[in-house]
Amino acid sequence: MHKDHIKSSVINFKSVARALTIVENELTGAGKLLKNLHFEKNAPIIGITGPPGAGKSTLVNSLIDLLLTDGSKIAVLAIDPTSPFNFGSLLGDRIRMASHFNSPDVFIRSLATRGSLGGLSAKTIEMADVLRAAGFDYVLIETVGVGQSEIEIAGLADITLVVLVPEAGDEIQHIKSGLMEIADAFIINKADRADADVFANNLKKIIGQKQGEQPPVFKTIASQAGGIQEIANFIKSPVKTQHSRRELLLTEKAYKLIQQKLTQHIDKKKLQHDVAKALKDEKFNLYSFVDTYV
Amino acid sequence: MHKDHIKSSVINFKSVARALTIVENELTGAGKLLKNLHFEKNAPIIGITGPPGAGKSTLVNSLIDLLLTDGSKIAVLAIDPTSPFNFGSLLGDRIRMASHFNSPDVFIRSLATRGSLGGLSAKTIEMADVLRAAGFDYVLIETVGVGQSEIEIAGLADITLVVLVPEAGDEIQHIKSGLMEIADAFIINKADRADADVFANNLKKIIGQKQGEQPPVFKTIASQAGGIQEIANFIKSPVKTQHSRRELLLTEKAYKLIQQKLTQHIDKKKLQHDVAKALKDEKFNLYSFVDTYV
Repeated sequence: MHKDHIKSSVINFKSVARALTIVENELTGAGKLLKNLHFEKNAPIIGITGPPGAGKSTLVNSLIDLLLTDGSKIAVLAIDPTSPFNFGSLLGDRIRMASHFNSPDVFIRSLATRGSLGGLSAKTIEMADVLRAAGFDYVLIETVGVGQSEIEIAGLADITLVVLVPEAGDEIQHIKSGLMEIADAFIINKADRADADVFANNLKKIIGQKQGEQPPVFKTIASQAGGIQEIANFIKSPVKTQHSRRELLLTEKAYKLIQQKLTQHIDKKKLQHDVAKALKDEKFNLYSFVDTYV
Repeated sequence: MHKDHIKSSVINFKSVARALTIVENELTGAGKLLKNLHFEKNAPIIGITGPPGAGKSTLVNSLIDLLLTDGSKIAVLAIDPTSPFNFGSLLGDRIRMASHFNSPDVFIRSLATRGSLGGLSAKTIEMADVLRAAGFDYVLIETVGVGQSEIEIAGLADITLVVLVPEAGDEIQHIKSGLMEIADAFIINKADRADADVFANNLKKIIGQKQGEQPPVFKTIASQAGGIQEIANFIKSPVKTQHSRRELLLTEKAYKLIQQKLTQHIDKKKLQHDVAKALKDEKFNLYSFVDTYV
């Protein structure tokens, strides 16, 4: 192997972490950094989403194990919705991923979303691009599918894997059509459960009614690394991102970045001051206020 | 009772529904409608949030029963996060609320959030204000506490009730501080469960460490209407919204309405067209594109 090649394949994790911090916190130079990104490898962004408890992190863990075997370098962006109702269970997930924390080929970063209302996806897009440009072969983004996060992830991932568990049983007919739209593949995890086959068959029936390309259904037992090879093969198979899809993805990304740009200048402190002042008028009307404010 | 008074206390549900539709879909006249709202009663917006399965809808149901006894008119805005992973369980909640669907004093409207990324709260603010101006005595907003919706609701409600169930047991110490910040009162529902007292005591201990005003803890068995009177009393007690809090609330509302206003002109169709055009350049860089676009 040529010396330069070896050198170029070493990723400086400290530099990557620093770049991510600059972008995450909008520090000086963030804009320039993003505009100067070069994407030599064109690494795919792989979104992994699913309900809490579906075993996403265990699955990601097993998948990383497999992808590492051919010398790939992998970045993981774990998005934490930090719901106040989530009594530490996400933390448990993160700890399960810890087996890779010391691997020189795996970079893991958590991204909390609290308070960044609407800004989540713009930040995620930017951070994922930093990782892609850093020279990783795969950028995995893991998110709990609650609220709208699973829709958001589909708007930025090249491949979206939806992880389900057989628990929902015959209620599967209630599966929302949105899930069909975003999934490039379904993964039924914990497939050793009794009702896994019934679940898989019901899911396939629903997929069969779908127009256009139908996503495959994989069965895994992530805790025993069962069925993971098929997922790895699916990810590695020839480019799934068609031209039209790429255009849609980039439009979605551009839209969110523009949204962020248009609103980031609003100074909340000043706004509060102005609201307080306007409130002194007994006829204060919020909508008239907003109308004259911008 | 004076005839005029009787007349003015009749709310035309059809007009209300129409006004909500105009605002929800940003039809012609929406802006004018909002600017002309008059708030004679200054009805409180009461947010009810909590994890899935906490019994929020049953609680809302029982609460409505009680509030109706003094002739109050009540509007309910049920916010449906429409997660594709939610296999119809929210639908079940809605059906439980159906006992009031035909009451002439209860107006119920569901608001789905899919696709309205970031726009949820602006729309909710507007719709809640339409209901307040329509002459209802209470505007209840019910939302499942997943992701950020429970934070959003606190940003628009005058009183936020957080519903919990004793299940979390001694894990309560993991309760996120965010929940303390938004709760005006905690409701422990399904309080007939074995570990309810332990849970309540642990919760009170945590609340005791909180600086400033400490939210009360109520215990309810909503399915049997147990403990609901105390909640009704709490809601009816003298104004809890202090001046400083009102200022913060209005700032939060103004912020979201401004965000919406600044971004609603982005034409996605045109954007996609422009992205497609820009993509023909091999040196296409998303961040440079966004930078020159706005």
